[in-house]
Amino acid sequence: MRALHHFSLQPRSRRIRIQLREKKLDFEPLAERPWERRDGLLRLNPSGETPVLVEENGLVVAGAAAIGEYLEEAYEENPLLGRDAAARAETRRLIDWFDGKFERDVTQNLFHEKLLKRLYGLGGPDTGPNSGAIRAGKANIRIHLDYISWLVDRRNWLAGAFFSLADIAAAAQLSVIDYLGDVPWEDHAGAKDWYARVKSRPSFRPILADTWPGTQPPPHYADLDF
Amino acid sequence: MRALHHFSLQPRSRRIRIQLREKKLDFEPLAERPWERRDGLLRLNPSGETPVLVEENGLVVAGAAAIGEYLEEAYEENPLLGRDAAARAETRRLIDWFDGKFERDVTQNLFHEKLLKRLYGLGGPDTGPNSGAIRAGKANIRIHLDYISWLVDRRNWLAGAFFSLADIAAAAQLSVIDYLGDVPWEDHAGAKDWYARVKSRPSFRPILADTWPGTQPPPHYADLDF
Repeated sequence: MRALHHFSLQPRSRRIRIQLREKKLDFEPLAERPWERRDGLLRLNPSGETPVLVEENGLVVAGAAAIGEYLEEAYEENPLLGRDAAARAETRRLIDWFDGKFERDVTQNLFHEKLLKRLYGLGGPDTGPNSGAIRAGKANIRIHLDYISWLVDRRNWLAGAFFSLADIAAAAQLSVIDYLGDVPWEDHAGAKDWYARVKSRPSFRPILADTWPGTQPPPHYADLDF
Repeated sequence: MRALHHFSLQPRSRRIRIQLREKKLDFEPLAERPWERRDGLLRLNPSGETPVLVEENGLVVAGAAAIGEYLEEAYEENPLLGRDAAARAETRRLIDWFDGKFERDVTQNLFHEKLLKRLYGLGGPDTGPNSGAIRAGKANIRIHLDYISWLVDRRNWLAGAFFSLADIAAAAQLSVIDYLGDVPWEDHAGAKDWYARVKSRPSFRPILADTWPGTQPPPHYADLDF
């Protein structure tokens, strides 16, 4: 059976789990702790990072960027990139926006500081969260929520009329920040309405059921009518 | 005519210029200074970032990730991703390695600190380069050069037997660090030999001719027998 090595709270792992379910492709999820640098994971991906997909025929596809494109090439049903060049360009621009810019502006500042830093055992005498980074992350997320609201004010989904990998990438990143309780939904009605629509998709449910030892998401986190 | 909005010293802009030339696609290069946040560039790409490709039919493709995939889909001649799923997965894994990991580990620490920070007018009282970041960048680059040497010890090019977008992404990143004089080639013979082969390709020549006001690359920079 197809296997996905993933870290349940990592946005890029989440986006591949959602994509696989949207495409109705069965897989066995294998939980990894990338900071432990397990030999078996390093053999599959020399960077030691998740996600890594292993197909039944032995094909290894490492990293969300490569897996995302591979799944669209290999399995044409339920396409998530868009059908023409303009739609595909827009979907990929937005994937890069969320897995690039959002990840640097927000996820690095909040998820990294509040949780990953501890798991990776990073930092010297000041191993606690950096308050400057957390302030920056909380300010930056508002720009991204405004941008999502602006987009869905003009389109049904982020990249256009169709649900796409752009929605999946954005929602996967946001879901992790929401787990930390750091998404100011109340000030961003358009983004909130879009996220509620993503959350209600069956592909998203398993994501919302995951928790991490010693942490607890806010009450609204898995609530579909939050 | 096809146009490419680019910033001549940016690794991701360089990689698209090289890809276009490898595919023998003519284009007009339009120099941008992304830190000026020019309205015309923001209309093409809301992130304000280069590169942005504008096709003759008006199609806009924003960001190196989207342009790289678009060019391979739209123009089948001179393919640079690989022909089967395994080759394409390996090429994309390595693009992500160099435009992701290398960029964070090395380019952010050296190019950002030494040049971009000044151009973007970032930083408060301490606007100079952060010496800790520069030390980290100089240490990290050795791991990446070792990895390149390891790969080309086993393969003709980075992703396998064929010249690919992986070579282009890696060489584009390295070319900018080499411009700063921060690549310790003398300790990494395998990587140096591979880079000399990339440098000698006609697609790479225009890159090496670019300079930036107030800066000067080291004498070996544009030398094909460095």
